[in-house]
Amino acid sequence: MSIFKELNLKYPIFQGAMANISDAKLAAAVSNAGGLGIIACGSMDKELLKEQIKMCKKLTDKPFGINLMLMSPYVSDLVDLVIEEKIRLVTTGAGNPGPYMGKLKAAGIIVVPLVPSVALAKRVVRSGADAVVVEGTEAGGHIGELTTMALVPQVVDAVDVEVIAAGGIADGRGVAAAFALGASGIQAGTAFLVTKECGVHDNYKKAIIKAKDTSTTVTGRGTAAPVRVLKNKMAKEYNRIIKEGIDLIRLEYLTLDSLKKAARDGDMENGSLMSGQISGMITEEVSCAELIEKMFSEFKTVVKNLGKNHG
Amino acid sequence: MSIFKELNLKYPIFQGAMANISDAKLAAAVSNAGGLGIIACGSMDKELLKEQIKMCKKLTDKPFGINLMLMSPYVSDLVDLVIEEKIRLVTTGAGNPGPYMGKLKAAGIIVVPLVPSVALAKRVVRSGADAVVVEGTEAGGHIGELTTMALVPQVVDAVDVEVIAAGGIADGRGVAAAFALGASGIQAGTAFLVTKECGVHDNYKKAIIKAKDTSTTVTGRGTAAPVRVLKNKMAKEYNRIIKEGIDLIRLEYLTLDSLKKAARDGDMENGSLMSGQISGMITEEVSCAELIEKMFSEFKTVVKNLGKNHG
Repeated sequence: MSIFKELNLKYPIFQGAMANISDAKLAAAVSNAGGLGIIACGSMDKELLKEQIKMCKKLTDKPFGINLMLMSPYVSDLVDLVIEEKIRLVTTGAGNPGPYMGKLKAAGIIVVPLVPSVALAKRVVRSGADAVVVEGTEAGGHIGELTTMALVPQVVDAVDVEVIAAGGIADGRGVAAAFALGASGIQAGTAFLVTKECGVHDNYKKAIIKAKDTSTTVTGRGTAAPVRVLKNKMAKEYNRIIKEGIDLIRLEYLTLDSLKKAARDGDMENGSLMSGQISGMITEEVSCAELIEKMFSEFKTVVKNLGKNHG
Repeated sequence: MSIFKELNLKYPIFQGAMANISDAKLAAAVSNAGGLGIIACGSMDKELLKEQIKMCKKLTDKPFGINLMLMSPYVSDLVDLVIEEKIRLVTTGAGNPGPYMGKLKAAGIIVVPLVPSVALAKRVVRSGADAVVVEGTEAGGHIGELTTMALVPQVVDAVDVEVIAAGGIADGRGVAAAFALGASGIQAGTAFLVTKECGVHDNYKKAIIKAKDTSTTVTGRGTAAPVRVLKNKMAKEYNRIIKEGIDLIRLEYLTLDSLKKAARDGDMENGSLMSGQISGMITEEVSCAELIEKMFSEFKTVVKNLGKNHG
């Protein structure tokens, strides 16, 4: 059975987990709008996440998901928490969720790891993943090398679970393209960042609205953790330091709280403004419901026109 | 009028220009199969191209195109030649074809520049381009930064000419995705490289057939001419030299004839094995006709299924 049906979602869309951004309020708004809201744990400890889950349950009676960042020191505690809280779906990032799979699956939780390659997709499916999110390098934040267009069909051919496409999807055309490539659903991040229910600083939203197609760059390309951000002073400085030979202490100092600087303080110079290549397609702030409704009505139109012109 | 109709093509597909690879024989085979074959001039002089055009005209009575590499020292002569030879369509790469536009258009030639960004797309359309090829970073050979998924809709929204999508397209799913994103046609390179009519060395074709999703890398990322190739000794050495600080003389020495080494000699260690991220999807050598027929029959199936499931 499709996980979208299992969760009884009106629309096959996940809201991508963005650390320090995807909180209870955003997740609840997405779930109320018919998609699946997802709270990003980032580096939250058990207490902090518990608060967020409590808040989200107050704001929606629909299912929502939790994203576990596998490099977090609290991940084991958080796994226990999502089981206690009867969360329906967990996405995972930054690694192989293998060690927690047994526990999560035994509790009946749907586990959907994010994968950047065919090899990792196969590995997580072997260890029990119910679906995979395949994220292209056009996405904002932490990225892999392969693009959505190239990676989605290769993963679809390699595994027998549902594939959710992420990266480069801002409207109904992107949704249709993802389904054409073989995806069963999509995940959007940047598009949800510029919604009324998203709590990031207005400067951050305005920077994305102002951005064009070439406004993003990748910090740390060639290191273990490349990140797509809007070009700014921080990104330039980061890549200058890397070019001089990676100096981990200076990089740590530079990126210390850089996400919070962007999201909470609206510091457009020193903040890490994670954002995808579709930033140029985002022209206004809308509600989550408006975004999703428009995306999927446009999707239907695109499919109809494809059938009319090429059926 | 659609340029595909104007050329009376059976299928809206261009064969991408690959220097030292896309010759008269390959172009004629693609044109005979219902697409548009394109001869890549690379660094050919007028005499060499004249021979190629003569050969191509012998092999097909269908229209074919010429790709002008704008950094070639012979480009002005080649422009005169394509006019003399009454070539129907010219694609251009590596720059702005502005200076030659007037002459080409006056001769009734359809001009289709390859663009990596919205800004360049707008500029070439202002100077008279009839359509644009939008190529994503997943493509083989010389690449830009933006992916097909992110770039195609942004260019479609920005210009009022037809957009041809390139990069990441190996089968009917990719064709359908490209059309969903707003393209009017597609261009494929890597897929045509592994065809019976393509004259590259067997080792090169076998390397692509053996490749998986993660088998490509980019040489010269961050320089003026990043190139996507299959990972090998040459690519590793190239990027090692760049990391040490770019030494143009050593790079020149390293890449001297590297394309020819790959295409003609089948040197898998020192050759530049340009190839796209869809290399992992190519599993056998077929004829150009088989490739195109399969691609577009699969395209129809994908469109039909989209309509059935989401119409």
